[in-house]
Formats: sequence, structure tokens, C-alpha cells
Amino acid sequence: MAGSVFGTAFQVMTWGESHGSGLGVTVDGCPAGLPLSQEDVQRYLDRRKPGQSSFTTARREGDEVEILSGIFEGKTTGTPIAMMVRNQDQRSRDYSAIRDVYRPGHADFGFDRKYGFRDYRGGGRSSGRETIARVAAGAVACRLLEEYGITVTAYTKSIGGFEVAPERFDLAERDRNSLYMPDAVAAAGAQEYLREVMAEQDSAGGVVECVAKGVPAGIGEPVFDKLDACLAKAILSIGAVKGFEIGDGFAVARSRGSQNNDPFRVDASGHVLKETNHAGGILGGMSDGSDIILRAAFKPTPSIAQKQRTVTTSGEETEIAIAGRHDPVIVPRAVVVVECMTAITIADLLLRGKAARL
Amino acid sequence: MAGSVFGTAFQVMTWGESHGSGLGVTVDGCPAGLPLSQEDVQRYLDRRKPGQSSFTTARREGDEVEILSGIFEGKTTGTPIAMMVRNQDQRSRDYSAIRDVYRPGHADFGFDRKYGFRDYRGGGRSSGRETIARVAAGAVACRLLEEYGITVTAYTKSIGGFEVAPERFDLAERDRNSLYMPDAVAAAGAQEYLREVMAEQDSAGGVVECVAKGVPAGIGEPVFDKLDACLAKAILSIGAVKGFEIGDGFAVARSRGSQNNDPFRVDASGHVLKETNHAGGILGGMSDGSDIILRAAFKPTPSIAQKQRTVTTSGEETEIAIAGRHDPVIVPRAVVVVECMTAITIADLLLRGKAARL
Amino acid sequence: MAGSVFGTAFQVMTWGESHGSGLGVTVDGCPAGLPLSQEDVQRYLDRRKPGQSSFTTARREGDEVEILSGIFEGKTTGTPIAMMVRNQDQRSRDYSAIRDVYRPGHADFGFDRKYGFRDYRGGGRSSGRETIARVAAGAVACRLLEEYGITVTAYTKSIGGFEVAPERFDLAERDRNSLYMPDAVAAAGAQEYLREVMAEQDSAGGVVECVAKGVPAGIGEPVFDKLDACLAKAILSIGAVKGFEIGDGFAVARSRGSQNNDPFRVDASGHVLKETNHAGGILGGMSDGSDIILRAAFKPTPSIAQKQRTVTTSGEETEIAIAGRHDPVIVPRAVVVVECMTAITIADLLLRGKAARL
Amino acid sequence: MAGSVFGTAFQVMTWGESHGSGLGVTVDGCPAGLPLSQEDVQRYLDRRKPGQSSFTTARREGDEVEILSGIFEGKTTGTPIAMMVRNQDQRSRDYSAIRDVYRPGHADFGFDRKYGFRDYRGGGRSSGRETIARVAAGAVACRLLEEYGITVTAYTKSIGGFEVAPERFDLAERDRNSLYMPDAVAAAGAQEYLREVMAEQDSAGGVVECVAKGVPAGIGEPVFDKLDACLAKAILSIGAVKGFEIGDGFAVARSRGSQNNDPFRVDASGHVLKETNHAGGILGGMSDGSDIILRAAFKPTPSIAQKQRTVTTSGEETEIAIAGRHDPVIVPRAVVVVECMTAITIADLLLRGKAARL
Repeated sequence: MAGSVFGTAFQVMTWGESHGSGLGVTVDGCPAGLPLSQEDVQRYLDRRKPGQSSFTTARREGDEVEILSGIFEGKTTGTPIAMMVRNQDQRSRDYSAIRDVYRPGHADFGFDRKYGFRDYRGGGRSSGRETIARVAAGAVACRLLEEYGITVTAYTKSIGGFEVAPERFDLAERDRNSLYMPDAVAAAGAQEYLREVMAEQDSAGGVVECVAKGVPAGIGEPVFDKLDACLAKAILSIGAVKGFEIGDGFAVARSRGSQNNDPFRVDASGHVLKETNHAGGILGGMSDGSDIILRAAFKPTPSIAQKQRTVTTSGEETEIAIAGRHDPVIVPRAVVVVECMTAITIADLLLRGKAARL
Repeated sequence: MAGSVFGTAFQVMTWGESHGSGLGVTVDGCPAGLPLSQEDVQRYLDRRKPGQSSFTTARREGDEVEILSGIFEGKTTGTPIAMMVRNQDQRSRDYSAIRDVYRPGHADFGFDRKYGFRDYRGGGRSSGRETIARVAAGAVACRLLEEYGITVTAYTKSIGGFEVAPERFDLAERDRNSLYMPDAVAAAGAQEYLREVMAEQDSAGGVVECVAKGVPAGIGEPVFDKLDACLAKAILSIGAVKGFEIGDGFAVARSRGSQNNDPFRVDASGHVLKETNHAGGILGGMSDGSDIILRAAFKPTPSIAQKQRTVTTSGEETEIAIAGRHDPVIVPRAVVVVECMTAITIADLLLRGKAARL
Repeated sequence: MAGSVFGTAFQVMTWGESHGSGLGVTVDGCPAGLPLSQEDVQRYLDRRKPGQSSFTTARREGDEVEILSGIFEGKTTGTPIAMMVRNQDQRSRDYSAIRDVYRPGHADFGFDRKYGFRDYRGGGRSSGRETIARVAAGAVACRLLEEYGITVTAYTKSIGGFEVAPERFDLAERDRNSLYMPDAVAAAGAQEYLREVMAEQDSAGGVVECVAKGVPAGIGEPVFDKLDACLAKAILSIGAVKGFEIGDGFAVARSRGSQNNDPFRVDASGHVLKETNHAGGILGGMSDGSDIILRAAFKPTPSIAQKQRTVTTSGEETEIAIAGRHDPVIVPRAVVVVECMTAITIADLLLRGKAARL
Repeated sequence: MAGSVFGTAFQVMTWGESHGSGLGVTVDGCPAGLPLSQEDVQRYLDRRKPGQSSFTTARREGDEVEILSGIFEGKTTGTPIAMMVRNQDQRSRDYSAIRDVYRPGHADFGFDRKYGFRDYRGGGRSSGRETIARVAAGAVACRLLEEYGITVTAYTKSIGGFEVAPERFDLAERDRNSLYMPDAVAAAGAQEYLREVMAEQDSAGGVVECVAKGVPAGIGEPVFDKLDACLAKAILSIGAVKGFEIGDGFAVARSRGSQNNDPFRVDASGHVLKETNHAGGILGGMSDGSDIILRAAFKPTPSIAQKQRTVTTSGEETEIAIAGRHDPVIVPRAVVVVECMTAITIADLLLRGKAARL
């Protein structure tokens, strides 16, 4: 009930803070018999690692995952899979600048009001490092979905005003630039923009898009646990996300029924398909067999070196300039997090759906 | 696990289909001692009733709620509050036109794939009438929030391209026009647009905005059950919603940290406030004391009288023209549903938060 | 979280009080395609009806169930099955004798301390009538288990010191006597004992035993949701139960490993069987393929006509003699309740188990 | 849903196997501000350690707990408390004797049927070492309950036929003998009995009793999550438990209402008390302010050195003699486990109860 558990059938519980011993997750409900190795998980964690370009923090994080349970002779046993990443870079620092001040755009104020005090070192539980646990669990979910022929792929859709152009979309390009943008031209523009933003001690926002292919029709539980509702929760639970769209998203508000409805047709082999996919692969809260397409809007990194007006914990107005290493944009490192939360959600509803029929 | 339960502390379970005996909801976990009458609930249900203008269906629905349990001497007892609305208009009809055909934009196909068959009368569980149960439960949540000084108010933000202008915003106007738009000029434009859409046997989409005032700081559970994550799920679980925003929403993607961060300040009486509210009242997944502001994008009503291409349940291509009474736009009647789902979510997290401290 | 929900995959939520409008239950997660009729449910409710012998209350309860949703063309649709039984016998009575006094052996005191006040009419939510909702849901569970070749049968094992003798056990006899005892001799003794108890304005306790046949091996979730743990909760959640045993129960404390372990063997057709069943069909929290056998100890009916010492709600010592119609023993009418809670639990874990393998 | 989560408000998720990297637990929902140290937890773990007498296994287990998160400056932060104990004694052994054989009285057969295969090294997830995670979480629960003036104390009630005599009951004696029996005479008898049992390569069962003092009235959620129902689940979820009693337990079956009802009275300071406590501190599923008293029956250790008949995984009849270090009786080391599961359950329902009133 305290919010560290996600999912019902494929259920994860995470723990850890940015400046504690480490971060971890336990996955309960992964079916037995799934081949799973440390490398399967590490591969995903490596994608969210910082220090890979000038746009991510210089903090050296090894972020090696240890799988502590649930695997026997290379396969999942059906029992909980516990995983842990130790924090390595916990050098004692001077936190006096942020200990008694509420950083604008951060969770500091809410934590104090909720719990009466807070772990003021680097954001504690609301740090971006919290996503390590999500990615470890998501890597397991991706491995599981693979068995069902499902793939989940996310990428940077836009940073600031620089957006991937449909006609230049090239997924292979995604892994060639440090912004995870599947469009070299847009990436070049965004990089220039970020340099400018950094020069001004400021930060930028952007959009991540995610596509799940191969999801069979009928996944999702009508009424409250609709597939899109669960995905929305999964995505909004990632820090800094302020918007969510499925399929055409907000554009549907200006569309008409005759445009927005996707006609059904039958292909050569007798399968029912949709001609278009304005719905983003979800109708009535259940997958419809088309690609599931969602987008998440990330706000600019709240930690900026510019001076900002704020108040102290004792209620005095003051100013704060946040020193230290902070990504000028959250989006590139969030790509794998969106992928992972999407995979966890689909895996959960896929397993839940097994009980829908006799 | 089958998706008809929402919430943890303030927990609702709904039931019912458009063409069955009725619709209902049981609310478990409403605190004891809350004054609650049938009128408190009926007032909310009346707001979603159809037949109130030329833009809503002509179907006569009395939609009188009966409270079956949980109230003693005018107050909640702490035990489940069961409520039911009987379906009155169940005249036997000819469903042959839709029984064997998947309606584009509807859940028909997913239901068949998930369960092996479906209740083909009017959408069954995916009908808009399902929201009756949400509204009944939401009315109780609103009554509960009132005790804590919290109000939740939604309205139509836009229909098609006709959007409420900030400078003309007038909440009192909301209840004066049939579109629930707090801007008479935008409402007039939207009405004209809807007449045009109807003439073309088509339908329109739009956006609902919702504001919660008086929510104390610290509501929401860090990590997965963030207040915004839970709201996103609540809102996306409403049929036809394809997008969700909190605060500035997708606009944050083009903003900068220095613009998007809301500075804190202290008011005359020593309270910590934010100068702006780009965050929409939520930081780090917890309420920050400012107004909570969210938006939901609704797709155009999928049932249209125009001919559409589709396939039969036996896999043959065909055409369908959906006869009968259908709103040309879902938005006006969805306003109270958004309000209610928002209230249920806040009530749930408010009660959950009581266990956060010793 | 307020305790009116049971189960995860086969999930029930109940509502209602003894002197309100009625009692009901919603079953979410019953698989689609199960043939189910009103008669299937009514048959179980009829077994818990009072007024069937001199040992049950004279209160006339029609207890006709209405199925409100979830069934289409005689089969479950996979959506919630809501059921309701109206209270018929709500004649206005004088509650002054119990309104301000805590009845010994009842929940009155706890309700007042928990909620600040209580529905003092006949026990409210803690009335025996609350089991109507369990039986309606259990009837659905029994119908579902039938599809999997599983039957659940309970009977009165003992009343006071009168116990079914193994050598006289005859299940057919169970339905021939009003005490639901599968042993005519023990039933005759118990009836004589009850007449004596009634003459003394007192009440009696007893034990119900329940056997589930046909449960395949491997049902139950290791660690916390063991089959026996879930059964224990299910059974102890029935009012008046004070003890629970699985298999040999408390007798294991005096047994030895060499006696208590059940040897495995292989039958003619190659199936693995156990030679004995001290385990009561559950090993390591999972069914082992043998009959599941459990027992529940019921305390004597707390409402007795004898004078008892107690206190008033304002804290003064007083005496109370509880007038009205009360069964001198709870056990016979509880038999079907034990059967139903057992069936719900097995159905739930059976469905949950579907996600254990790829 | 896979059963490794217990509780709702005070929620624990455990992981680990007897022969994997270690065992652990994450506690989510422990209120913020509770002073908690490694020693607070270690003290409880030390009580379940083996190797402390001739009646426990010789296996050297350091069982040092590491607290990985959730504590800041010596106090809980309200975020998840992750704890881990590494397995130290994982020397490579020859498992061929048990790999392909179902040990009588063990979970082997169920695991194979449920998951298709199993971790055959020492029981895997169904090993007694699994209770390490329960004890670590229970230590936190005990610390929390202390803040509310609640203590939970368990002890060995009986081993074989040797039972604590009420007139000799001396809690201080509990910690003076290796059987945790609060009666030196009974302990001496039981020790003699155990030596005899061991000489015969056999094992013994027994009963643990647990008392919770200081629980305020009104804890427990009516209907399904009754305090006794949740305790029953908690206790039966411990491996080897086959029976559960609250208060007078099975003796109520032979009692009468006039004997079994506990009269209420008022003490000198105006507090409502019960004169007797046949109910074991729970009425209508809620605490009644008296001591909560429960008992758990443990079966004899299933691993015995005697030859037993069984079958191989390929379905051939065979014999097995289980070598290695095994306690001749589970009870003494289970005492702290019963205490911990009781504490977790009460802590959970205490926190849940905070939402019962406005």
C-alpha cells in the first residue's frame, strides 16, 4: 500500500535510495522455466548508465547487477527473482546546501510534509537512480515477452522542438547517437540545442515513444485494469513524466469518428487486421493485435545551476543554485525505463489473462 | 485481478452491463461517521444522464440510485456501501446487425479474442453506461473529500478545435450550457461544429480538464503509486480516453528547467506556496499543496451512422452503419466521470497516507 | 483494505447487514463460458436457510437470489457476477435492550471502538446473515470447480461431545437429519443434547469437517499464499470459528515423523499416490493430489436467553438476557458456508496457478 | 499473486532459497520516524539460529543481516526497508539421493507438478531457512508495535505429550532451556523424549503458543480480514503448521454459550474489561482489548534417517533414508517465527485501521 509494488501476476517490489547501500527489486510471479542470465539483465542496465556522452552525468556508476534468487540451472524456478545493484559512489559530501532547502521541481517539500523529515542526500527514494530497479525487473519482463513473440522498443521522439521526422525514422540510428533518436538529423539539431541549454545553466524536456509488437488481441482487463490504463500508470510512475498518450493521443480531440475509427480487414491468411492504427493497438482497454504505441512527455531536469527562488525548511525565502552533475535532459536515459515499464505492464496483463477462460 | 476493482483504502468494485438488470458498485473502506444520503449520490448521477440536450442520446434513463447498505441513521458505518441503478430501457431489439460484426473503434474484437464470445447487446461491459457505477462511487468520494476541505471540479476544455479561452473562463457558465463548457463563446462555436458533424453522420472528440483544490501536500505514495500515476490510471480507465496530462503536460517537452520549475515562496501567514503551477500540483508523485490540474483527451464517439468497412466474426469483410441513439461527442457527459474518478483516486491516497507516520 | 474482498483471481466483494435492504456479493474473475443459472446458486442458499428444524430460528427468510450481471445466454461472460438477496423480515422492533449494551461473545464492543458507533440492529455486518453473500459466491465457485472435476463436501463432525464415528460414516445420511451429520446415531445423540441445552437457555458448539476431492497436485502458492494458509484464513473469517485443522491437525504434535509422513507409491496406471493422508492433501502449501481435509471449530451461539453480566456503552455494569430467535448451535447452518469458503479458496488458487508456467 | 507478499499496509515481500545466494525481505509501509538498528533485527535472527543445542542442526549459520535501505540517521524514512542474509554454508554436495526422489512429507512432489521441475538442493524455497526473511521483517514489526505499547511473546507449549503446566508456567524459564519451554519440568521431560526419538532415527511434533499484550480494541477488519483470519493465514503459512487455535480453540466445540461468553465488566479507572478470555482477545474478528492468545500445531520434522517408501520422479517405487543434519523437532526454532508472523499481522491491521474513521 506504500507504493513500492507494481503488478499483480508479474509483481515487482523495489527498494533503495541514491545514497544508501544500493538499489534492488524482487520479481514475484515470473513463470517457471524461462532461461535467464545475469547478462540478460545487465544488457538493459547498461543502456541507462550515465557517463556515456557529454549529455549525461560524469558519475561513474558500475551498476553491476547481482541476481540473488529464483534461478536454478539457468532457468527461472517460479519463485521470486531478487536482484541488487550496489551503490559505489557514495563519497561523503557536503549536503548543507540542500539539506534545509526545498529544491524547486523536486519532491523535497512533499517528502517533508508526508513523513515529517527526509533523506536529503541526492533525492533519496525520488532520485533517478530508483529506475535501476525498474530496468532490472523490466529486463526480465522483456525476456519473458520474447517467449511469446512480443518485442518492446522505445526511443527519443523529441527533445525541445527537435522531433523525429516520420520520413527519416530509422531504428538502427537510435543506437548510433547518444540521444537514442532514430533520426540523425533531428539528433544533430537536438545536440546543438542541448549545448546551448547547458551553456545557459538550464535544462530541456522531451518525449519518448514506445512500440510493442506482437501482442495478441485480448490482453488487458476491462473496466479499471485496461491495458492503456495500466500503461498510463506505469509510465506516469516514472519521475518527471507529465503526459501520456496512446495511439493518436491528444490529436483525437480534433479528429472525427470517421477518421479515428480503424477499419477492420482480413489478410490473405485469414487474420483480422486493422487498416490504420489511430487506436495505438488498444480498443476498449484490450490489445487489438496491432502495434501498441505510446508516448511519454518528460519535463526538463529540475536540477539546474541557475539561481532559483525557494524557501528553507524553516520557512524563510532564499535562493538556491544546484551544483553537481546533472543531465541537461532526462530523456535519453529514460528511453530504456519506458521500455521496461511497458514490458512489465504487458507481461503482467498477459499472465493475468490466462485465467480469463476455463 | 479481473479488473473491476479500483483503489486500495477507498476501494470500489463495479458490475453491470448496458443491457442487463442494471449497474452497481460497492464501496469498501469509506470511513465511518460520514453523513451520506441518496440525494448526495443522485445529484452526481443526474449530471451524467442523457437526454438533456440535442447532443446527447434520446434514451430515457431514470437512473435512480438505490443505496443498499453501509448507511445507518444517515451516516456511513465503515462497512461496504452498495449502490445499484436498474436498467429501465431494455426493450427487446434486433441485434443482428452488430451480433456478428466487429464495430470499428469498439471493444467487440478484443472481447471475442479474450473470452471466446461476447454479450453483443450494446457493448455489454464496455458500454458508456458502465460509468454509472463510477459516478455513484465518485459521489461518495466527493462527499468524503468535502470533510477534508477538498473540492474536485471538471469541465469541458475543448470540443474539436473549440477551446475554452483562459480570459473568458467562467465556471458558473459551465452549468448553463449543455456542453459543460465554462466559456459561452467557445460553447457556441462547439455547438455549431457539432451540428455540422451530426449532419455528416459523424462524431467529434474533445478534452476534459479537472481541478482539485485544497489537497494538502504529501498525498501520493512514492515510486509506483504516485498521485499522478494513480490519476493517470483512473482517467485512462474511462472508455475513449487516449491521452492524459498533469499540469503543463506535453508542453513541458519544449520548456526549460528555469521556466518549468515552480519557485517556492512563503505567504503572509507563513505557509509555503508555489509562485507558479507548471507542475499541476504534483511533485515527485506527491501533492505539493497547489491546485491539482489534469486533462483527458476523449476520442470521437466510435458509433457513427456512416458506413464503415469491417469484418464479421467469421472473418468476412463487410460494411456496417451503426443505427440508433448515440451522442455525437462523449465529452459533456464524461465531465462528471472525470471528476468522480479524480475524487476516488484522491480519497484513496488520502486514506492510505494516514499510515505514513507513527 | 477494509476487509470485504476475498481472493485475487476469483475475487469476491460482499456487502450488507442483517437489518438493511439486503445482502450481496460481486464475483470478479470467474472465467468466461461457464454455464450458470439462478438455480445453481439458489440450491446452495437453500441449504443455509433457517426454519428447517426445531434447532434453527423460526425467522422466515425467503432468501431468493437475483443474479444481476455477468451472465449472457446462460453462460458467464468473464465480467463481474453481481448477486443480491433482499432482506424480507425487517419489521420494526424494539432494540432498546441491546442498543446501549455490549452483548458478551459478540462484536458490539469492537465495532464501537473501531468506528465510534455501530448499527445495533441484530449485529449489523457481523450477523450470521452475512454468510448469505459467501454462499452465493461459493455456489459459483463450486460450479466452476465442477468443470475441473473437483467436488467440495462438508458435514457436521461433532456437536458438543457427539461425534461422527468413522465406522458409521455415511454421507447420504448427512442430508437426512437436520444437523447435517453423516451418522444417524451421533445425530440422535446430538439432538437429545441440544434439547437439553435449549431447556437450559444455553447453546452448544461443534466441529465442521470438509473434504475436497479431485484437486490436482500443485495448487497453492509457496510461502505466504499456501493452500492451507488461504484455507485457514477463509475458514477463520467465518464468524464463530475458533480453530482450524488440516489433515491430522493438532494430533501431529504427538505424532512422529515416521508415522506422520505419507509414503508415496505408484498405482497400476502409473499415477503417483500417497498411501496415507495424514497431511490432509497439502504438502509445502501445495495440493498433493490426495483429498484435502480440513476442520473448523465453532463456538456456541453467543446469543443466549440466560442472564449474563456485561456493561453498557456508557460504562455501567448491568445484566442482559438476549430474547428472540437464535439457533442453539451454529454448526448445521455453517456446513454449507464452510463448503463455500473452501470452494472459493480452491477456485482462486486454481486460477492463479495458471500463470505458474510459460 | 505468486504468494511471496504478505500484508497490505505493513507489506513484506520475501525471496531466497536454502542453497542460493541468500535470503531477504523488503518491508514496504513501515511508518516514518521509527528508530531501527541492525541490532534490533539481528537479535531476533539470533533466536532462530541453529547450532545452539543438541536438538538443532550442527550447520553453522552466521545469519548476519544487512539492512540495505529505508533507514536514515537511525530512523525509518517511510520507504522500503530491504534486508538480506547471505547463505554461507553452500558447500557443493552430492544431491543425487534426493534429486530424483520425492521425499515424503516434503513439498518436492508439489513443486514438480506446479512448475515442471524444482530446485532439488535442500528444499529450495520450501526450506526452513525461508523463515529468516519472516523473522527479519517480524523484528521490524515488533519494533513498531513497541511504539504502540504492544508486545508479542511466543514459547513452546508442548513437544510430543510433554506440555507446559499452567501452574508451573514461568516465562523467564523459556530462555533458560534450549526448547524455549516456560516450564523446566516439562522441558526436562521433552528433552528425554527427544533423545529417545533421535535414537530411533525419528522426529517429533509440538505446539507453539503466542500471546500479544496491549493490543487496543477494534483492530481487525470485519468480514474477510478479521484479525483471527489474518493470524490464521500468517501462522499456517509457516511450513509444517497443521493446526491453529485462537483462545479456547477446539475446546469451544464442547463448551456452552454460558461458559464460553466472556462477561464484560468495568475496572476502577472506568475501562471496559472482560472477566475471562475464552475468546483469546478477538470478538467478531476485532481485538477486544484482552490478551490475544493463539496456538500453532507443528508436525514432526519430515526429514528422518529411517528408511521410507516413496517414488522417483520417473515414477518408480523406491526407498529413501534422508541423511544430513536435521532438527528432530521444528518447534523450538519456530517459536520466534510464530512471534514474528503474529507481529507482522497485528502491525498490518493496526496501520490499516487508521483509515477506519474520518
